[in-house]
Amino acid sequence: MSKIVLTGAAGALGGRLRAPLARLADTLVSTDLAESLDGLADNETYVKADVGDAAAMMELIEGADMVVHFGAIPDEAPFEEILHSNFLGAYNVWNAAQKHGTRRIIYASSIHAMGMYPKTVQITTDMPHRPDTFYGLSKCFAEDMASMYWDKYGLEAVCLRIYSASGPVQNARALGSWLSYDDLIQLVEKSVTSPITGFAVIYGVSNNDRSPVDNSKASFLGYRPKDNAEDYAAEILAKTPVADPQDKGQMCHGGPFATVPLGVSGVQFIKKMSEGN
Amino acid sequence: MSKIVLTGAAGALGGRLRAPLARLADTLVSTDLAESLDGLADNETYVKADVGDAAAMMELIEGADMVVHFGAIPDEAPFEEILHSNFLGAYNVWNAAQKHGTRRIIYASSIHAMGMYPKTVQITTDMPHRPDTFYGLSKCFAEDMASMYWDKYGLEAVCLRIYSASGPVQNARALGSWLSYDDLIQLVEKSVTSPITGFAVIYGVSNNDRSPVDNSKASFLGYRPKDNAEDYAAEILAKTPVADPQDKGQMCHGGPFATVPLGVSGVQFIKKMSEGN
Amino acid sequence: MSKIVLTGAAGALGGRLRAPLARLADTLVSTDLAESLDGLADNETYVKADVGDAAAMMELIEGADMVVHFGAIPDEAPFEEILHSNFLGAYNVWNAAQKHGTRRIIYASSIHAMGMYPKTVQITTDMPHRPDTFYGLSKCFAEDMASMYWDKYGLEAVCLRIYSASGPVQNARALGSWLSYDDLIQLVEKSVTSPITGFAVIYGVSNNDRSPVDNSKASFLGYRPKDNAEDYAAEILAKTPVADPQDKGQMCHGGPFATVPLGVSGVQFIKKMSEGN
Amino acid sequence: MSKIVLTGAAGALGGRLRAPLARLADTLVSTDLAESLDGLADNETYVKADVGDAAAMMELIEGADMVVHFGAIPDEAPFEEILHSNFLGAYNVWNAAQKHGTRRIIYASSIHAMGMYPKTVQITTDMPHRPDTFYGLSKCFAEDMASMYWDKYGLEAVCLRIYSASGPVQNARALGSWLSYDDLIQLVEKSVTSPITGFAVIYGVSNNDRSPVDNSKASFLGYRPKDNAEDYAAEILAKTPVADPQDKGQMCHGGPFATVPLGVSGVQFIKKMSEGN
Amino acid sequence: MSKIVLTGAAGALGGRLRAPLARLADTLVSTDLAESLDGLADNETYVKADVGDAAAMMELIEGADMVVHFGAIPDEAPFEEILHSNFLGAYNVWNAAQKHGTRRIIYASSIHAMGMYPKTVQITTDMPHRPDTFYGLSKCFAEDMASMYWDKYGLEAVCLRIYSASGPVQNARALGSWLSYDDLIQLVEKSVTSPITGFAVIYGVSNNDRSPVDNSKASFLGYRPKDNAEDYAAEILAKTPVADPQDKGQMCHGGPFATVPLGVSGVQFIKKMSEGN
Amino acid sequence: MSKIVLTGAAGALGGRLRAPLARLADTLVSTDLAESLDGLADNETYVKADVGDAAAMMELIEGADMVVHFGAIPDEAPFEEILHSNFLGAYNVWNAAQKHGTRRIIYASSIHAMGMYPKTVQITTDMPHRPDTFYGLSKCFAEDMASMYWDKYGLEAVCLRIYSASGPVQNARALGSWLSYDDLIQLVEKSVTSPITGFAVIYGVSNNDRSPVDNSKASFLGYRPKDNAEDYAAEILAKTPVADPQDKGQMCHGGPFATVPLGVSGVQFIKKMSEGN
Repeated sequence: MSKIVLTGAAGALGGRLRAPLARLADTLVSTDLAESLDGLADNETYVKADVGDAAAMMELIEGADMVVHFGAIPDEAPFEEILHSNFLGAYNVWNAAQKHGTRRIIYASSIHAMGMYPKTVQITTDMPHRPDTFYGLSKCFAEDMASMYWDKYGLEAVCLRIYSASGPVQNARALGSWLSYDDLIQLVEKSVTSPITGFAVIYGVSNNDRSPVDNSKASFLGYRPKDNAEDYAAEILAKTPVADPQDKGQMCHGGPFATVPLGVSGVQFIKKMSEGN
Repeated sequence: MSKIVLTGAAGALGGRLRAPLARLADTLVSTDLAESLDGLADNETYVKADVGDAAAMMELIEGADMVVHFGAIPDEAPFEEILHSNFLGAYNVWNAAQKHGTRRIIYASSIHAMGMYPKTVQITTDMPHRPDTFYGLSKCFAEDMASMYWDKYGLEAVCLRIYSASGPVQNARALGSWLSYDDLIQLVEKSVTSPITGFAVIYGVSNNDRSPVDNSKASFLGYRPKDNAEDYAAEILAKTPVADPQDKGQMCHGGPFATVPLGVSGVQFIKKMSEGN
Repeated sequence: MSKIVLTGAAGALGGRLRAPLARLADTLVSTDLAESLDGLADNETYVKADVGDAAAMMELIEGADMVVHFGAIPDEAPFEEILHSNFLGAYNVWNAAQKHGTRRIIYASSIHAMGMYPKTVQITTDMPHRPDTFYGLSKCFAEDMASMYWDKYGLEAVCLRIYSASGPVQNARALGSWLSYDDLIQLVEKSVTSPITGFAVIYGVSNNDRSPVDNSKASFLGYRPKDNAEDYAAEILAKTPVADPQDKGQMCHGGPFATVPLGVSGVQFIKKMSEGN
Repeated sequence: MSKIVLTGAAGALGGRLRAPLARLADTLVSTDLAESLDGLADNETYVKADVGDAAAMMELIEGADMVVHFGAIPDEAPFEEILHSNFLGAYNVWNAAQKHGTRRIIYASSIHAMGMYPKTVQITTDMPHRPDTFYGLSKCFAEDMASMYWDKYGLEAVCLRIYSASGPVQNARALGSWLSYDDLIQLVEKSVTSPITGFAVIYGVSNNDRSPVDNSKASFLGYRPKDNAEDYAAEILAKTPVADPQDKGQMCHGGPFATVPLGVSGVQFIKKMSEGN
Repeated sequence: MSKIVLTGAAGALGGRLRAPLARLADTLVSTDLAESLDGLADNETYVKADVGDAAAMMELIEGADMVVHFGAIPDEAPFEEILHSNFLGAYNVWNAAQKHGTRRIIYASSIHAMGMYPKTVQITTDMPHRPDTFYGLSKCFAEDMASMYWDKYGLEAVCLRIYSASGPVQNARALGSWLSYDDLIQLVEKSVTSPITGFAVIYGVSNNDRSPVDNSKASFLGYRPKDNAEDYAAEILAKTPVADPQDKGQMCHGGPFATVPLGVSGVQFIKKMSEGN
Repeated sequence: MSKIVLTGAAGALGGRLRAPLARLADTLVSTDLAESLDGLADNETYVKADVGDAAAMMELIEGADMVVHFGAIPDEAPFEEILHSNFLGAYNVWNAAQKHGTRRIIYASSIHAMGMYPKTVQITTDMPHRPDTFYGLSKCFAEDMASMYWDKYGLEAVCLRIYSASGPVQNARALGSWLSYDDLIQLVEKSVTSPITGFAVIYGVSNNDRSPVDNSKASFLGYRPKDNAEDYAAEILAKTPVADPQDKGQMCHGGPFATVPLGVSGVQFIKKMSEGN
């Protein structure tokens, strides 16, 4: 592969993808809002750019075989902010990729596109959306757009519905929803190296005993996670207060995002909750 | 009912809804981009406003029991135009309705949210989106947002996936997809008067022999169309050229919208096609 | 057909079935708790008996080709009462029918076996039970028992999930759920005269525009209702107060039965509600 | 349309299609094993030929826009006979149609492709095959072949799973399964005149109250039958003996074909059964 | 957790749960019909009581956070006996739990709620019931009741459809259906410690190669069995006589329970079968 | 077991089954078109015969408990050749087996019965056929015939939809579709030794990370493959050219068979493709 563009390269997840992606292409072009990035690989270039800037994206993506699009606000925020970075950002990427003949986009979608389903409903990759926040709604938008560009122009896309990507497992919800960094990297690698993907959706969850999602319809991608949050179960359950099944924040896949008012940070809420445990 | 707000009141469809809606509420507030409207009902007020103007929508919707939201660009157009009128317009309406405690929104969604499904696949009201244009993508967005506001705030919504609303049946595609104006009015009336709707999706299609949609899961709304495009079948089929099943514009539900490049008017294309027949 | 046994013959529904059933067999044996019945048909015999009395049922059903089992408490009641009349009554009937080689049982099941599903979910004849009351739970029991006697002994059964059987349509809920007496009679007649039924489940609902059920999988029974509650819609909706979609009694198929505490009469509640309208 | 070829033109069903098809094309070429046909339309030519004769089919189909393929043994028979007329016949037709660029084949498939499903299971157009005879197996073969030629070469096909096509309704089974001749003609006409069909399957059943099939997924074809076997119900049920639900011939969609040994005429069996009633 | 009540504590399965449950709560109250139990844990109390005794259950369950309800006749028996211990017993437990505000019930349901499905049909956790015995019918009853108490009162329940719980694998059927005691214990522990369960159904089967059930929709519970009956396969298959696929006792999930007449012990039958091998 | 007949015993797959099958029966009768076979087991007899020869098959199968039917042209070929060896061959085997009271047939079906489904659609064991070649069509035929003989005569069948059975993994497609020889042997052994199978369909695929099939509904057979093509992934992907998702040969399950014209060898095509890589 000649060139991969990675957006969101300075982020908590994007940053971990730089080295693996650099190994998969002749050139990796990393981009984000930061001034610069440390530790560039030999074949890696960094360009400061805003995904919400159409011209910048059009320029960056020229000649790219694939785009790994992780650049966006990674939290619930007021609609206007989400609109710029997450809606427009995604549009700019797909529009540029189509114009330039890019073959595939790997997209950091999110569980929050499906966050209002109760956890007692196992969610598959072909059920209708049920977002929990403006953040989740922007993921629905990009997935539907990805489906359209595939149907109309043959531009492939793999939408990764990332659940709880983090280092150590942080709370009871994550016993089911955790995605280890290693498994995230595997997921992105498989999405890049699969010969054919068409338009595909897959959940980004580790091999957790309590995983509440069904990836079977995307089995052809060959994603087989290795880590298991159950290693943390005894310790975490011991300090978890009694849950209230009538509370959407506890009953729904979206977790706290299913409870916070629209426009209000869910990440802050989760942080408090984890500290509180 | 005290007050209904109708957006898009000067449009081809919205205009036909003014009189019926005026009969269902104490006050009807009609709005659109036009300077004024002719033939206001006694209890109807007209306010010129842009649905893309958040403050205007917030003011208009105050005190409304229901909003019938038909105001948007009714055709494919460049993304930026769709973004303003169709995406932002819908967001402004839902946001204002939630803030003001409005009970229900009746929304002019469209078949183009599902336009890339082949016609040989009968589409239901609970299959994933498959939009064919930026126009269709904006309908997906509003439907997902409607689902979210219902899940989080209990704001009801009926999303009408309007197919080919027109006067006389105009081409072979419309033999299946036609929605007569009378049936459109019935559909909106039932959506307004149903005691309970939650979040509902329903196709706006007449009682055509060749109807390619399945509304059974929304049967509780009681929509029972009366008109049937088959009355026009012999005449129209006689002048229809041989179809090409490999052409998405003829094979897909979205019709010409499934073929036109993104951002290019599909209505113009249909017009030519009908004249050409 | 030689002999039909009708239980619940003195009830509001059972009483209406006496004449039609008398026309379908050489002998009709009617039974209920009443001392006697007026207007016996020439080939009709009345026997006072309690369906909860095993010996009485064993005696009555001897020689019967079919049993039309409508005898039970037709309302929510304390568990012990439901246990005797509805659970034990059904068991006594199936047990006797199997011992005597009866060919088929037509059973008055009820929508309340499915009452906790939201109305916005169209219910089919092969979804899992979701009862709303002890009354509904007894219907689940009899349906499962009917399935078992068919699987193990070849004893046929048609379970009629009767919705709102009444004279005139009484409230907004019944615009969807009404079953006219004529349609009830047709339903029972078809269940009796169908050459083959195996184990079948079918909803007892008229041809209402707003019917929220799907009988398609029992289409072979040929039940095609004639009446339509929509004739009453304008009048009833005009006097219906605003509904609260968060209230299970308004949102669920079971209606008030979905709200009343277990063991408390739902019929009284409906009565008040209708009068209140 | 320039040219239609009709095979089986001398048969009980094919014969009824000649006049309607002659009206839909410039030229109708009818073919069968008979020496000649009476009453040729002005634009109709008759050619004696065996569908099992590859060269004959190749010659006949040259220049045809559509083939209406009804030529086959219309009954169960020894495998070798079915192989020649029904398997090879169908292959010859598809092979020739593909070679000559024919646009669409309308195929007389049969309920016997699905005959072993119990009648209490409503059969749809997208369930797996479950044939009851070699005759039914040949229909499965042709349907699968039709799917393949569509997938590989874009050759359209409408497979009509004809149930009980006959004049008056003849027995209790036909109360559900009857297909009147008028409805058969409508079905073929719609299959010919639909602008697009792709690969489609549809049951050939009239608008019977007791119809045990679900054609909803082929609704786009616009087939809306007019006749209803229920007009004959009272008379026929009165003389129908008690059915045995353990007998596959009575319980299964295929009727007597589900009981007769493979290779033995089911039509004879039905005849006896109808006379016996 | 403060207090767990375990019914059926003297039984073959209940007895194995005492020690694990004692570790999960401050207090374990064990109950059964036996006079006393050996080996009480330090925090375990034993109370002799009949689950069919409403007052006794009401008293025992007061203050309980959870009830693990295993007390019932573990075999087919005459209806009257099943009615008392299994139907009434379950009702008494749910009624008391609801009155006392208990949070969750873990219920020993059984495969026999689904026993009449053929083994060649993989059974899921959301298919309709198909019981094989009065015993199985009582499990259907309790599951439906559990669903109702969850829907109406928010009382959680996990229904364990235990298949063949035993020590060593005993016959060919158990190669698919075996549940080792260790896996049973894991299943109950997970059901107790899961923060949220709502109303859930899950099969109690080990990690057998031949497992004929699908637990995927309950994956959020995190039950991951460790044992595998395949270790016994060679030995058992060698002594298994030829099976008859027309025999429901061999073809159906319920095994011998699918064949024994209603009311007759299936356990005795299985015993003979295993010895006979 | 007394006697097993193996057809296709000289073939690439059949040859590997001889020793394992010889261990499972008193007598193994191997047959193929070759003059003789090397290395006969002590209890193995070889008979030269053509599966297309009805009399030969009738004689061979007499007294057989099971037939393992692998004899057929293992590639696309002109229809007439496929007709003789694959269609007639299968018919001869089923017909003889039924006449002689054989209990079960293990059949080498193929992925090519489903080859036209896109790889991005996970295929299950109960979806309709979608063959890609005459070869695949013959597999559809035999599967439907197998279903019929089970429904009508109780003759069991396990249809193995073998995907890419080979030694080392040969190309990128096989990373998902590979079936190792050891796993093939396990699959056949489990099919033979399972006490009950009825009519079953199962995919022959190893435990590949990228397996694109779903065998869950045949889980009762206990097939648990051990090998994983992922061991070859890095090496193979490194030399795989960029795939074209619009090419059916790359996008569909059937691989090159989905692209080659009907009647033209797909195996040659695959060979070239693998060498080309």
